Amino acid sequence: MGASSLSSPSAPIGVFDSGIGGLTVVAELRRALPHERILYVGDTARVPYGGKSAETVTRYSREISDLLVSEGAKMIVVACNTASALAVPSIALDYPVPMIGVLEPGAAAAVKATRSGKIGVIGTRATIASEAYKKEIRRLNPALSVDAIACPLLVPLIEEGLLDDEITQAVLRRYLSPMLAEGIDTLVLGCTHYPLLKQAIHSICGSDIALVDSAENCALAVKELLKPNPSEDSSDSSLSDSSPRLDILLTDSSEGFLRIAEKSLGLSIDSLAVRRVGN
Amino acid sequence: MGASSLSSPSAPIGVFDSGIGGLTVVAELRRALPHERILYVGDTARVPYGGKSAETVTRYSREISDLLVSEGAKMIVVACNTASALAVPSIALDYPVPMIGVLEPGAAAAVKATRSGKIGVIGTRATIASEAYKKEIRRLNPALSVDAIACPLLVPLIEEGLLDDEITQAVLRRYLSPMLAEGIDTLVLGCTHYPLLKQAIHSICGSDIALVDSAENCALAVKELLKPNPSEDSSDSSLSDSSPRLDILLTDSSEGFLRIAEKSLGLSIDSLAVRRVGN
Repeated sequence: MGASSLSSPSAPIGVFDSGIGGLTVVAELRRALPHERILYVGDTARVPYGGKSAETVTRYSREISDLLVSEGAKMIVVACNTASALAVPSIALDYPVPMIGVLEPGAAAAVKATRSGKIGVIGTRATIASEAYKKEIRRLNPALSVDAIACPLLVPLIEEGLLDDEITQAVLRRYLSPMLAEGIDTLVLGCTHYPLLKQAIHSICGSDIALVDSAENCALAVKELLKPNPSEDSSDSSLSDSSPRLDILLTDSSEGFLRIAEKSLGLSIDSLAVRRVGN
Repeated sequence: MGASSLSSPSAPIGVFDSGIGGLTVVAELRRALPHERILYVGDTARVPYGGKSAETVTRYSREISDLLVSEGAKMIVVACNTASALAVPSIALDYPVPMIGVLEPGAAAAVKATRSGKIGVIGTRATIASEAYKKEIRRLNPALSVDAIACPLLVPLIEEGLLDDEITQAVLRRYLSPMLAEGIDTLVLGCTHYPLLKQAIHSICGSDIALVDSAENCALAVKELLKPNPSEDSSDSSLSDSSPRLDILLTDSSEGFLRIAEKSLGLSIDSLAVRRVGN
């Protein structure tokens, strides 16, 4: 598809995640691209993805991407590190619209941020087992050392809203202490849920460690992709004609979803519906 | 179907759960009925059920029950409290074999165990929201008081194998302290994962609180159901012809599954395969 349809303000940017984590990407997209419509799908009927196999995560990612395309999305933002690591490489070319994951922008930002050359990565079990961050960081700079650890309890703690809680602090301390002792100076938050714990992570890591937020870097990459072609006539005034919206489809009704989206991320949601996906 | 096919040792007892929790029921079935074949399905592609809606849990339960029946199961043991609470009442009569959940046996055992008349129940968010335990206990004895609390972090902690860990202790203390202060003398472990935390729960509750293990009580109910009809010829010698087996189907490959089954429950597994279910 051409750049003209990408710059169309009426077609939504499609975004998906297994649960609420991808909303951190939505919050950053809203900030970076305030005029865009966003259609978000949360696969809450099958959440979480992080402990599941590549085959299953790929099947789920295809089903959700099919839905986004059928709803007219002009691009697909895979706002889930597990799906970005396990599914995007094998399915991206099957779609008629661009597909962008959170992994590559995050890895690139980490490479830019480190001074000591020692980067830590935290993520789900599946993301870490895939070694996708390690490979991407090393591809960009083979001299860097990468210390990656799976943190499977963080998503449940976040989905429960325990963002500022001593139990979450104890879990974080357990996960992070070994890599802090190794001397990392940069920590990739390799799961889109984790920015919701930024404050808690900061209080454990201290201010000397750069936190690389995959949500933020993904939003910047999307903005770059949507930049109007200089040869096209696309003045700022045309953007003001668009009506920014955030529409949400969940695959199962989810009680805590709205509360966390609105309270922790300050997102205003225009519509929310439950849609069965897959079978 | 008649009692004769139920007492057939060659047809397996079908058992299902979203993940590994139902293996606590399998361990108790093995103890109570050492000669039976057991076919276990763990819906690891969609684990956990405990935060999902009744509609979704019912759909998943139907799909797994269909699979068990097509594999020749002579009965269906729903070794998941969430599915027992949300799905069994509406789907049990649709199957040609008996379906037995964990909820009613557990509620009955709690009613029998309490002296003070104050019963605590812990379970997933969905189980507790359904009030199924409260209703069943009150149906059996309207004078009893029931204090129920959702413990959504326990399943992830157990699936991670943190059975004897200070973080798990801190989480349990958080959940249990209020109902201990209320003076319960009986605590229903209303999720088949929880017996794996029996020791940790004992150390917090002390020995004065009776722990009602839904796995154990469910196995006793199954044994009762399989008891040969006195009018039939079913001597013990016929049982020795059967070959006890434990066959496992998972809907997604699951790394930690075998480790926990074998290490914590001492189960010996004869075969394990991955089978796609539903979509």
